[in-house]
Amino acid sequence: MKKITFIGAGSTIFAKNVLGDCLLTEALNGFEFALYDIDPKRLQESQLMLENLRDRYNPSVAINSYDDRKLALQNAGYVINAIQVGGYKPSTVIDFEIPKRYGLRQTIADTVGIGGIFRSLRTIPVLFDIAKDMEEMCPDAWFLNYTNPMATLTGAMLRYTNIKTIGLCHSVQVCTKDLFKALGMEHDGIEERIAGINHMAWLLEVKKDGTDLYPEIKRRAKEKQKTKHHDMVRFELMDKFGYYVTESSEHNAEYHPYFIKRNYPELISELQIPLDEYPRRCVKQIENWEKMRDDIVNNKNLTHERSKEYGSRIIEAMETNEPFTFGGNVLNTGLITNLPSKAVVEVTCVADRKKITPCFAGELPEQLAALNRTNINTQLMTIEAAVTRKKEAVYQAAMLDPHTSAELSMKDIISMCDDLFAAHGDWLPEYK
Amino acid sequence: MKKITFIGAGSTIFAKNVLGDCLLTEALNGFEFALYDIDPKRLQESQLMLENLRDRYNPSVAINSYDDRKLALQNAGYVINAIQVGGYKPSTVIDFEIPKRYGLRQTIADTVGIGGIFRSLRTIPVLFDIAKDMEEMCPDAWFLNYTNPMATLTGAMLRYTNIKTIGLCHSVQVCTKDLFKALGMEHDGIEERIAGINHMAWLLEVKKDGTDLYPEIKRRAKEKQKTKHHDMVRFELMDKFGYYVTESSEHNAEYHPYFIKRNYPELISELQIPLDEYPRRCVKQIENWEKMRDDIVNNKNLTHERSKEYGSRIIEAMETNEPFTFGGNVLNTGLITNLPSKAVVEVTCVADRKKITPCFAGELPEQLAALNRTNINTQLMTIEAAVTRKKEAVYQAAMLDPHTSAELSMKDIISMCDDLFAAHGDWLPEYK
Repeated sequence: MKKITFIGAGSTIFAKNVLGDCLLTEALNGFEFALYDIDPKRLQESQLMLENLRDRYNPSVAINSYDDRKLALQNAGYVINAIQVGGYKPSTVIDFEIPKRYGLRQTIADTVGIGGIFRSLRTIPVLFDIAKDMEEMCPDAWFLNYTNPMATLTGAMLRYTNIKTIGLCHSVQVCTKDLFKALGMEHDGIEERIAGINHMAWLLEVKKDGTDLYPEIKRRAKEKQKTKHHDMVRFELMDKFGYYVTESSEHNAEYHPYFIKRNYPELISELQIPLDEYPRRCVKQIENWEKMRDDIVNNKNLTHERSKEYGSRIIEAMETNEPFTFGGNVLNTGLITNLPSKAVVEVTCVADRKKITPCFAGELPEQLAALNRTNINTQLMTIEAAVTRKKEAVYQAAMLDPHTSAELSMKDIISMCDDLFAAHGDWLPEYK
Repeated sequence: MKKITFIGAGSTIFAKNVLGDCLLTEALNGFEFALYDIDPKRLQESQLMLENLRDRYNPSVAINSYDDRKLALQNAGYVINAIQVGGYKPSTVIDFEIPKRYGLRQTIADTVGIGGIFRSLRTIPVLFDIAKDMEEMCPDAWFLNYTNPMATLTGAMLRYTNIKTIGLCHSVQVCTKDLFKALGMEHDGIEERIAGINHMAWLLEVKKDGTDLYPEIKRRAKEKQKTKHHDMVRFELMDKFGYYVTESSEHNAEYHPYFIKRNYPELISELQIPLDEYPRRCVKQIENWEKMRDDIVNNKNLTHERSKEYGSRIIEAMETNEPFTFGGNVLNTGLITNLPSKAVVEVTCVADRKKITPCFAGELPEQLAALNRTNINTQLMTIEAAVTRKKEAVYQAAMLDPHTSAELSMKDIISMCDDLFAAHGDWLPEYK
């Protein structure tokens, strides 16, 4: 029996999306879906939810929960990863509150920045453990990583384990849809080309029947930017650097030194920058889950429509050899010529018989490569820190973060890192 | 008669250094030294000075001043460039005073930063004109560039003209000498390896008889850092990022977001950062020149000892085929594997029969490559701006500068650039 293992299956909504899609994928009939999570209660909820969907859509699939990760992984062909180490409490709260004492504000903190760095530092060791289990139990399996920070985690897996890994996000799929919707433009039939790094990939080309749509997009965006809206940071980046970027304004606000600036507090309201957005979302998600749990977990009539997630489609392509193209996160093996080779880049990839082939994207416009490099700098240093367990490397990753280094002195950055080490405690391995 | 042409020969002291060295170089006997400068008075002073040296040291050499640059270049084998477009007044004063209105302070402003950007923008067009003349009058000549900003000017010549170009500085030669002197350590017999970008190249290895000297260097540096001294920024960078950097503390203070920070004014005195240092030096140099002019220009007994400049030694190596190794600025043709290929890097080069061969330096430690990338970002964008003559590209170069973007908002950066365009007037070509 072929097998898909889902690590972090306690994220019930996400498990529904990805495994729900798999249940609707004929090529995966007869598969086992092995669920694993360190939270038995959430694991059980996902089990029940998936059983409801399985009974409705695909009785051929076996849904099994495991409390032993190795057994969950045994002979898996595909491993989907959606863990979140340390969760909202205590970890996310720490990632936000301690920097706040130094005057360093954040919005999402799941990619780069001081929050993204420490999120990587507590997650990479767990991934390396999973990789060790996989090397023993399913060495040939594909590891589909959905956990953020995408570039650092995927880079660590690709460079320091033997596990075939692809990093998957959902910003590429919705980039132009959301943009066109916000600008009241017709999206059908558009041709797009996107490349860069995760959460900062660039809409390099956007056309319809060969006509460049950027002039019209920029005209409407300039108009829309005269009134407050939810995507002002990205419109500002497009205005100043010429291209639209894949991940949201609240994310990108903290990837650059331009937006969250103590000396320019007015930018927060001018550009509608939602400080502490991710903690707010966590609280809301927890509240919502309480309300909707029953309707998801114990609902025999639970329905599902195939989502925009890449996961099921990649597995389908690998099973059927029907090629599927998607925006994947891979090592920059010359794919983007003016970005470092150790960087993880987000480029078009093709999945087919048991393999993923990344496509050459060539050279980014220089200003876009430069913006990507500022984030790659801290990402590569974060991976080095996680691998070497040196505090000095963590300090350097933080001092190389564009937002952190713009706002704080080196002394404050180091002191903040030490406070974060102390507060995160055993959620982090020992650093020297 | 073989010929060396010196463009910007009105810098009498520098002309004395480089051409004085050439007069002491036997392999260059019988050469013509062709002098050219847009300032006839300073040109004449250099002519007189060099005639005094020539009469004393090498009567075989012809010293001729030209008021026609093409004739000066005709059939030259080597062209030494030491121009400074716009001089102290008006240009350097503008480069410092206008940013000051926005609260953006600088120290030297001749490499990156808003001052370095505008210095490049006014100098690159002049270099392209020189290159056009050279393509007509001496297409096979070697162009030895001493003018700053080194990486942008050398990069522009290498990427946008057909002229064989090498960028030359003097920080590599003195890097360890000065460091050891400051730390009271014996310099004789040390083995060193330096690579990076101009003014931010790294002392990657420093040994004696195979013993790594860094531990002792760092021990003494930590001690010395307890009291104020002139090199505190570099010692701070070494302490935080692990390696000593080639160019001075006053230079490096403005290449990073760590040191000149409105929110941390105490760093200026703590780290002895000499704001407005370069204008101060210009004023002093002008005063000194008045005092020493006569002793240099009209002194029949003027003496000269070969300086540490690379110029005469490179020409000697090319004439004699006796290899000479030096720190040269060249395009990064895979020389430093984790820096962009369009970057100009400073690596060991070998000069011999009519050619310069850059040496492979491999991978920089990640934190050092990251710091270099932050400066390469603004350098590459500055070259693009100079070539395209687009204001948008100038704004992007400034917004990508680590110090400028840490301190100012995008709006202020753009407004500052517009003020600089207005103030520099005709010293800049037209930008759209």
